[in-house]
Amino acid sequence: METRKRPGGRSARVRDAVRAATLAELAEHGYQGLGVDAVAQRSGVHKTTVYRRWGSPEGLIADALDLAAAEPWPIPDTGTLAGDLRALTELVRTGFADPEAGPVATAFIAAAMQNPAAATALHDFYQARHRQSAEIVRRAVLRGEVDPEVDAEQVVRFAVAPIFYRLFVSREPVTADDARHAADAALAAVRAKAL
Amino acid sequence: METRKRPGGRSARVRDAVRAATLAELAEHGYQGLGVDAVAQRSGVHKTTVYRRWGSPEGLIADALDLAAAEPWPIPDTGTLAGDLRALTELVRTGFADPEAGPVATAFIAAAMQNPAAATALHDFYQARHRQSAEIVRRAVLRGEVDPEVDAEQVVRFAVAPIFYRLFVSREPVTADDARHAADAALAAVRAKAL
Repeated sequence: METRKRPGGRSARVRDAVRAATLAELAEHGYQGLGVDAVAQRSGVHKTTVYRRWGSPEGLIADALDLAAAEPWPIPDTGTLAGDLRALTELVRTGFADPEAGPVATAFIAAAMQNPAAATALHDFYQARHRQSAEIVRRAVLRGEVDPEVDAEQVVRFAVAPIFYRLFVSREPVTADDARHAADAALAAVRAKAL
Repeated sequence: METRKRPGGRSARVRDAVRAATLAELAEHGYQGLGVDAVAQRSGVHKTTVYRRWGSPEGLIADALDLAAAEPWPIPDTGTLAGDLRALTELVRTGFADPEAGPVATAFIAAAMQNPAAATALHDFYQARHRQSAEIVRRAVLRGEVDPEVDAEQVVRFAVAPIFYRLFVSREPVTADDARHAADAALAAVRAKAL
């Protein structure tokens, strides 16, 4: 995308405005209610520009995910792997429970179920998250807390998976206890060298 | 639902025909392509009957899930918890990879993201699956393999969650190795009394 090369220019400002409008529309109406016209109106960017560059709700979602993947993510640093994993799963839990961020993150997952471009963008987004979050495992290795053979990204997947499972598959509430259990189970698997 | 009380009667046959047509339509067209008219035509049941009893694609999905929850599910019985958990995660993996069952199970999850009635039906379906599958943990307790304090349904959730996470969140392929790792990590957590 051409805007990529000019992060400070007018194109980048247009892209940011469209993205902010996309996120706001998703928070209010979800994926099913996302319309290119509404995003254009909310962003103040001309409708023909939005249609030309983003084309569809899926194009808007894919670009919003693309920008989100590049953003810094607050990697926990509590001093222990146990503390970091608990902080990570709690961050995921509270993110989805957040009245603004939650519906947006949920809309991304819903969009991926219905559109291949959104699915690819979601895949890339979570790959970035896994890489970033794996830092907590790499730090634990450096501290001598865990075996250097550990698969750091796999630990991240296993710690967060039970939260997503409750949210989107078994459709059960996710409490702070659930988030803590998920972190502790992943840690136990790491210590048993099962990850 | 009135048909519940007459499992062998005409209503039950109508319900089974509508459900079979719903599953076939879901396998072919997914949730987005599920239409009440097409289900009626395929089932041979009169359109007005289908509209009166099931009302909408979501009503059809909720009823199909309701019937699926009551069906027997092939609980593994290999003689060890390790073997049973591996068989369970492999069953989930191959189920979603199956060209007929996979799109249907995926459609159920997609429908739940967009419709509260489908979400409730999906919740009930997975509650039933957890209860049924927990048998493999209860058997391990009886064999003295694991601590009787173990949360049997939680073990099931943790074993299968990484598979669903790859399928619907991180959108990564799920190999037989992935399924085995998920089972082994859950087992390690059980042995460490983290579940």
